[in-house]
Amino acid sequence: SWFRRFGSWKIERDSRFKKVDDKDTARFESILDSRNNPSSVLYQKTENLSAYNTDWLRKYKGEAPVVLKPKQTQEVSALLEYCNANNIAVCVQGGNTGLVGGSVPVFDEVIINLSRMNNILSFDEQSGILQCEAGVILENADKYLREKYTFIYPLDLGAKGSCQIGGNISTNAGGLRLLRYFVYFFHSLVSSLPPFLVFLSPLWFFFFFFLKSINHKYKRYGNLHGNVMGLEVVLANGNVLNLQSNNIKDNTGYDLKHLFIGSEGTLGVITKASVLCMKEPTSYNLLFLALPSFANALKVKLLAKRVLNEIISAIEFADFQSLKFPLTYLHNRCSFPLEGKYTDYPFYMLIETSGSNDTHDKEKLTQLIETLFNEKLISAGTIAQDMGQFRSIWTLREGIGPGIGESKRACYKYDVSLPLYQMYDVVENCRVRVEEMLGHDTIKRGEIDVVGYGHLGDGNLHLNVVTPTFASKYENVLEPWIYDQCSYYRGSISAEHGLGRMKGNMIHYNKSALAVNLMKNFKQLLDPKGILNPYKLKVSYP
Amino acid sequence: SWFRRFGSWKIERDSRFKKVDDKDTARFESILDSRNNPSSVLYQKTENLSAYNTDWLRKYKGEAPVVLKPKQTQEVSALLEYCNANNIAVCVQGGNTGLVGGSVPVFDEVIINLSRMNNILSFDEQSGILQCEAGVILENADKYLREKYTFIYPLDLGAKGSCQIGGNISTNAGGLRLLRYFVYFFHSLVSSLPPFLVFLSPLWFFFFFFLKSINHKYKRYGNLHGNVMGLEVVLANGNVLNLQSNNIKDNTGYDLKHLFIGSEGTLGVITKASVLCMKEPTSYNLLFLALPSFANALKVKLLAKRVLNEIISAIEFADFQSLKFPLTYLHNRCSFPLEGKYTDYPFYMLIETSGSNDTHDKEKLTQLIETLFNEKLISAGTIAQDMGQFRSIWTLREGIGPGIGESKRACYKYDVSLPLYQMYDVVENCRVRVEEMLGHDTIKRGEIDVVGYGHLGDGNLHLNVVTPTFASKYENVLEPWIYDQCSYYRGSISAEHGLGRMKGNMIHYNKSALAVNLMKNFKQLLDPKGILNPYKLKVSYP
Ligand SMILES: Cc1cc2nc3c(=O)[nH]c(=O)nc-3n(C[C@H](O)[C@H](O)[C@H](O)COP(=O)(O)OP(=O)(O)OC[C@H]3O[C@@H](n4cnc5c(N)ncnc54)[C@H](O)[C@@H]3O)c2cc1C
Ligand SMILES: Cc1cc2nc3c(=O)[nH]c(=O)nc-3n(C[C@H](O)[C@H](O)[C@H](O)COP(=O)(O)OP(=O)(O)OC[C@H]3O[C@@H](n4cnc5c(N)ncnc54)[C@H](O)[C@@H]3O)c2cc1C
Repeated sequence: SWFRRFGSWKIERDSRFKKVDDKDTARFESILDSRNNPSSVLYQKTENLSAYNTDWLRKYKGEAPVVLKPKQTQEVSALLEYCNANNIAVCVQGGNTGLVGGSVPVFDEVIINLSRMNNILSFDEQSGILQCEAGVILENADKYLREKYTFIYPLDLGAKGSCQIGGNISTNAGGLRLLRYFVYFFHSLVSSLPPFLVFLSPLWFFFFFFLKSINHKYKRYGNLHGNVMGLEVVLANGNVLNLQSNNIKDNTGYDLKHLFIGSEGTLGVITKASVLCMKEPTSYNLLFLALPSFANALKVKLLAKRVLNEIISAIEFADFQSLKFPLTYLHNRCSFPLEGKYTDYPFYMLIETSGSNDTHDKEKLTQLIETLFNEKLISAGTIAQDMGQFRSIWTLREGIGPGIGESKRACYKYDVSLPLYQMYDVVENCRVRVEEMLGHDTIKRGEIDVVGYGHLGDGNLHLNVVTPTFASKYENVLEPWIYDQCSYYRGSISAEHGLGRMKGNMIHYNKSALAVNLMKNFKQLLDPKGILNPYKLKVSYP
Repeated sequence: SWFRRFGSWKIERDSRFKKVDDKDTARFESILDSRNNPSSVLYQKTENLSAYNTDWLRKYKGEAPVVLKPKQTQEVSALLEYCNANNIAVCVQGGNTGLVGGSVPVFDEVIINLSRMNNILSFDEQSGILQCEAGVILENADKYLREKYTFIYPLDLGAKGSCQIGGNISTNAGGLRLLRYFVYFFHSLVSSLPPFLVFLSPLWFFFFFFLKSINHKYKRYGNLHGNVMGLEVVLANGNVLNLQSNNIKDNTGYDLKHLFIGSEGTLGVITKASVLCMKEPTSYNLLFLALPSFANALKVKLLAKRVLNEIISAIEFADFQSLKFPLTYLHNRCSFPLEGKYTDYPFYMLIETSGSNDTHDKEKLTQLIETLFNEKLISAGTIAQDMGQFRSIWTLREGIGPGIGESKRACYKYDVSLPLYQMYDVVENCRVRVEEMLGHDTIKRGEIDVVGYGHLGDGNLHLNVVTPTFASKYENVLEPWIYDQCSYYRGSISAEHGLGRMKGNMIHYNKSALAVNLMKNFKQLLDPKGILNPYKLKVSYP
């Protein structure tokens, strides 16, 4: 099947955890006052809970007998206190858009779903700090800021219409700010379908790739560790840990909130957040460049950083092998923006700027282009003249994933961090390995494509290996070889999606035994019975 | 004396800690191979260790019998392993520029001083990540980046010539990037004195204020939690925790490094760091504005954020009461940049920009000024025409502290975070309180001055109360009243310097019992015997 490529590790249900019985559900109903809040407790028996039990990729399915939808921190607290006292395992769920199986139960964990905790609490235009409940949908936060304050939320990703602030923080989501127009353009496609129907549509994987890929942007607005100013977290025993903050600066004791950022629901349930937001830029521009080599792409990046400095908002690259897919399989949507054919040049780059003065930004871009031509770093290039061209170029870049999907072939996808100097070596090493192990003409004959694209801005490579089918002969060539390469070059096997269930047993590729042991200690301290998101992130159960 | 204003809490030596004897020092000598490294072990008996035992403010004095200067992580590890096994308390020391007494022993703790671990290990121009040992002096890191790569280090502060990367991270230092020219201008004053002589000079307190105050800048480059990509930390038991990283993105497990950022040497000794650095800007501009009210300053800030957006690098304010001091006591150095007198207007603002194109930046500034005049938000204003004027205006703003120093009166200084809407209320409340408690004409008669200035960019207020002398009648009026105000408005009693010894018992103003208890647990886990920086940060000993 299509999902085999993700691999998995064997897990058995932990018998220490109690199966939920009528006494438990009666207590849940009373805590959530379900008589007056009919949608606050949902049962597998009486309702179809498959939307809650199935992850976005439809790869992982759980069997939660009950879904709990608290409306307030105090309810989350009471639920956890009860579950902890009674050894009931809990799966924490935000928008359920996570890509590593963290947001659905593995067995019969009860789901605590945050979607009813969706109030925006305050925005302080002066400090730029937004305070909201964890269940606020990312797009709603962003819309609220844009429409009322011409501010933007410091994060943006393809799943913005469904994912939640709390989920983003729990996964330390790395999708970065992107231009308004484009988001709205594509997002409108998906938002025309009812939320949980999106992935039931035959088009879902197309949307998935399309949306998923438009989010990675150059590190301009920093990461969530720099932007989250405060959190409220309910611990496993029901204690409410208030780390909320109105302040940008506060140096009084250890900064505990960071432990919860990226902890994937295994250390506590995030119920509120304070997030530092930015003034909205008003001008967007886009450059598309053809280059003779990856080495030149790195040089262009440095020059761009010098000339465009403060206005850069994305630096992307793709090899010509990548562009084959959108141009072949999405040719009614995607076109090649330069004279000639995409095969004329080996490498391409996109450089996006966003700023507060369009004339200035265009002048800086022109200056950059001149320098690039003079220094013979690029072979060809174009600058988007209007929003139509702007979108069209992004559509090409963002069509790589969907194009591969449309090819109806199998695709092994790896989202990794690598030092930039070695980044493309790994793609080339991979080609060599494929030819050595699977026949030296497999690539030439077009049986296998090894394509590399990604984010030069933050060293995040998408290595995609497109094969005729999913088969262990391919998988064995690629895994764990690719993880070993990441380890060898001191990259990361998970740049942004986390470990969750999918890579829950792979932490040793990136972290030392001592570090993992410390993590275990923290888990033990905060969730001694291990009720929070068990079976995920291997440190989560000793 | 001049230092009384800092207050202090009573501490007794913990008798569990062993007094260092000859056996111990023999072991230290062997670990550090002191025969071949003559300056690696220094004794109170044979050398004058007062520079190591006295803090920058000369407020706190310790009695370390021995100073240990390791050159390598493995040496730090061996030292700590031994100290831990033998209950020897340790004071971790970087550049010894901390302002809350954290960097010097309280009693006879041995000092582990990082200054010999001063190697820059690597810089990756592509990712922007600098890897270095913790003892590298901030200014050296910055110079290295500028000269070799036209990059800058993401932090800058007045103490840059002495403070260390490791010390900055341990205190989560908040001084932000500032313009090149200015730093070099003032810094050269101080660097003309040998390091430890600076504070022995009768001018030291002048330098202190002057240098100290030029560092607070608008939050443009984010905070250290966003910029530190990796750390190497030696734990109390000597274990080396390797959290170094080449990657900007890595989501594999809990992000442990953040626990050490801002932990003031109580959880481990930072020995190496990976820090994300920025391309150097090439254009700097400065605006000086006079305003009729603080409310207008807040409006100007919002407009500036819209028009200048990505190029803003500092937004400062000062009331006219503040300017009195540099203009009166440093009049040969400071002048008022507008027509008329400083008393003509109640409030002033400085807006600094830095970018990559001077023409563009000036155009944006002109546009802002026009808008401000049209909307009648400002009463007067000027834009620095050259580097001379640029420096001169900063000299006025940065002369507030030194001016107060020169007045030879006493000054109670508070460095706090407050929500911007309430920020100036606290200054005014303070005036009311002073008049109520000390006589309603004390301020009018010029006996007491209550002045407010600080960083509109990040909500950091400097509230200074200038009194004839240091006396408990003044102190009692101000403390704990000011800390209560911070608590009441949910600000922070320590915006950036930390708690250290000075405010080691004040964490409850900002953090809940549950949070402090968790901190205690983390301390217990990482340093069960409490040997690291005992007596500081109250959570550090249960
Ligand atoms: C189209 C698409 C595009 C994407 N693009 C990106 C991208 O660019 N960058 C990126 O990093 N990721 C991306 N992702 C994956 C990303 O992890 C999620 O979109 C998002 O961050 C998860 O938010 P969520 O509310 O859906 O959380 P969920 O999927 O519900 O949960 C994710 C994890 O967080 C935990 N969790 C959720 N809420 C809480 C809470 N309140 N308290 C504690 N734990 C909680 C869950 O237990 C689970 O382990 C994308 C996913 C999709 C479907
Ligand atoms: C003129 C001047 C201007 C300043 N400006 C600012 C400013 O703008 N913003 C600001 O935030 N602060 C400022 N400070 C104070 C600030 O805390 C320090 O300048 C700096 O961050 C401390 O670095 P250091 O190497 O001198 O550390 P030290 O003073 O030696 O130590 C500070 C604390 O960190 C611990 N520590 C030091 N090194 C290590 C290590 N390697 N591992 C573990 N713990 C360690 C010490 O035990 C101590 O608790 C200023 C100080 C001065 C004198």
